Amino acid sequence: MKTTAKDIFASVWKIREGGPVVHNITNYVAMNNSANALLAIGASPVMAHAEEEVEAMVGIASALVVNIGTLSGPWIRAMFQAVHTARARGIPIVLDPVGAGATPYRTRTAVELMRAAPPSLIRGNASEILAVAGEQGGTRGVDSTAASTGAVAAARNLNRDFGSTVCISGETDFVVWGDGVLRVGNGHILMTRVTALGCTASALCGAFAAVEPSIPVATAHAMAVMGIAGEMAAEGADGPGSLQVRLLDALYRLSEKDIERRLKIEAD
Amino acid sequence: MKTTAKDIFASVWKIREGGPVVHNITNYVAMNNSANALLAIGASPVMAHAEEEVEAMVGIASALVVNIGTLSGPWIRAMFQAVHTARARGIPIVLDPVGAGATPYRTRTAVELMRAAPPSLIRGNASEILAVAGEQGGTRGVDSTAASTGAVAAARNLNRDFGSTVCISGETDFVVWGDGVLRVGNGHILMTRVTALGCTASALCGAFAAVEPSIPVATAHAMAVMGIAGEMAAEGADGPGSLQVRLLDALYRLSEKDIERRLKIEAD
Amino acid sequence: MKTTAKDIFASVWKIREGGPVVHNITNYVAMNNSANALLAIGASPVMAHAEEEVEAMVGIASALVVNIGTLSGPWIRAMFQAVHTARARGIPIVLDPVGAGATPYRTRTAVELMRAAPPSLIRGNASEILAVAGEQGGTRGVDSTAASTGAVAAARNLNRDFGSTVCISGETDFVVWGDGVLRVGNGHILMTRVTALGCTASALCGAFAAVEPSIPVATAHAMAVMGIAGEMAAEGADGPGSLQVRLLDALYRLSEKDIERRLKIEAD
Repeated sequence: MKTTAKDIFASVWKIREGGPVVHNITNYVAMNNSANALLAIGASPVMAHAEEEVEAMVGIASALVVNIGTLSGPWIRAMFQAVHTARARGIPIVLDPVGAGATPYRTRTAVELMRAAPPSLIRGNASEILAVAGEQGGTRGVDSTAASTGAVAAARNLNRDFGSTVCISGETDFVVWGDGVLRVGNGHILMTRVTALGCTASALCGAFAAVEPSIPVATAHAMAVMGIAGEMAAEGADGPGSLQVRLLDALYRLSEKDIERRLKIEAD
Repeated sequence: MKTTAKDIFASVWKIREGGPVVHNITNYVAMNNSANALLAIGASPVMAHAEEEVEAMVGIASALVVNIGTLSGPWIRAMFQAVHTARARGIPIVLDPVGAGATPYRTRTAVELMRAAPPSLIRGNASEILAVAGEQGGTRGVDSTAASTGAVAAARNLNRDFGSTVCISGETDFVVWGDGVLRVGNGHILMTRVTALGCTASALCGAFAAVEPSIPVATAHAMAVMGIAGEMAAEGADGPGSLQVRLLDALYRLSEKDIERRLKIEAD
Repeated sequence: MKTTAKDIFASVWKIREGGPVVHNITNYVAMNNSANALLAIGASPVMAHAEEEVEAMVGIASALVVNIGTLSGPWIRAMFQAVHTARARGIPIVLDPVGAGATPYRTRTAVELMRAAPPSLIRGNASEILAVAGEQGGTRGVDSTAASTGAVAAARNLNRDFGSTVCISGETDFVVWGDGVLRVGNGHILMTRVTALGCTASALCGAFAAVEPSIPVATAHAMAVMGIAGEMAAEGADGPGSLQVRLLDALYRLSEKDIERRLKIEAD
């Protein structure tokens, strides 16, 4: 697995040089953050959710990110069209099942999307991963009530059933696929007080998947970058408002040395 | 009425410790700000507006905030479902009639929501309160053209008709119920140059109502906290951009001493 | 053409004193930024997109800004109602054809809106202007792949066919009408790493068009103010996060001296 600081920074450079188009069908709360994070890291975000144009937009994208945070009927229809098109084109699909487990509508939609077109990556917190794997995770609203470690078995089941890499985010992020597990220990507790940072991580996973063919590697790179930028942002932040601003600055300025100094990644 | 600095900070602590789930059906402009303010003060925001899941989501919430700032048919239907469910469950409902008076559609929707399930709290500027009380307030867009004092009689009528506590926000915020009035004098003029801060105040009212059973007290606490955090943010801000960032930081860091030093609250 | 620093600042003052209501039907990503930029410069933003209220809301506005960045059927219907109403009332219409050329749906919608009610101003990047003029601009997502200079002939065609002033934004902004061209050289490369700043520029064009009857002059003023505030924000910013915050501060604090020092404007 290529997950040294040098490897990660090589991915960052590919994004900065290539500016891959990442198509996001995401929730209203996260849209602005996701677009800004993608621009800060060097990607080119597009947002489109109308059934009339979703195929055309996926057609020019290098990755698709689907996030169910503020669902409704027309958006779900567009999500199905988008994942079908992405699959037909062979571009990576990232699914963020925000709030799965909190309502049956969300759990069901996430699972149906997974069945319609198995995602390259499913990224959620422990409760959400447990919920889409059919287990009781006790999602409470959109925040996790379960520990990440507890969801690793569920992630492995999802990998077996759908072939998807699964990322369980939390204090430690787990990247699970086949028999492999990677643990990323970067990040900062203050990040849990800023909305939509999980969604933003999913958007970054899309950008890294657009330039790095191995999905587990791309995911580990994205989660390390998100966590490291979050640490840099948290140091010197006066609270969640300034953390959010500084996070975008950190993504934009991130150097190989920053990654080297801070990277906490382990394989089993 | 329990509205000393000590009482207010006790409510803040209840939010920080309990992390109450606050369900927001709010406008597109305010969503991100509202979620971030709720996280900064310690609550757990959820956003959901689909008829298919709104009942389930209200079912796990400790308060419901309905804000009509960017209405459309499907959202209105979800709002009615949400207020019915909240009423059946006995959780507090905060209604923010953004732009009532500016268009008949908004005024009518707000009034019909009030009739369907009387809110625990109606929070708006003077023009909006006059409009939903059936009087001519001359709302100009979404900003108030009337003074807060002029709307107190209208607020009292709303309280008589619906049993709702009414908060009229402005240079001085009035909290009106039964025969009582509380005046909160905190806040800063620069706050009027940041969008959705009224909506954010409504979201905070939801969080305080989730932990404090008296709605007038919860409202006074929320408005004082919002105003005090706004003052702290405005001092040292270079303009509305930095005020917005610093406001979230101030909500997160707010101490009992901050409240003690700044609190301007009066009962008649 | 009145485009000295003194003229521009006179427009800023008219906005600050009059607080014109600017009605925005814009995309989800840009809404918060657009509202905040309008408030920072002194205008009074409203957002409304329901067919049930769009006529009433246009009825109290001094300018209408239509932005197609996240289209769907119901929003398009509201956009048509809005431009018809604005035209009937004689208030300026700004059209921002975000992503025209990226999908046929966007190109077609933009062109149909132009035909239904010729905009006072069409503002987009070079690819978008080429696309709505029926030429191949090769829009890649929502970012331009064409140079602004290459789109001047297309802009002139649009002006001939629709009577609209056309603004092509880029490293140099071109304001094109009749036989005239103005070039505004302000701005900063870091602005391209913040989402929705083009949309924000369109919103500001609406505010300036509300107070300055010549659309080419209003557009030049708005683009100069946006570019100058962007330069002030970029200097001292640590990245795109802080640029965005500082931009709002700069719009709020902008003085005639700031404009005088930095203005780069040329007529042919």
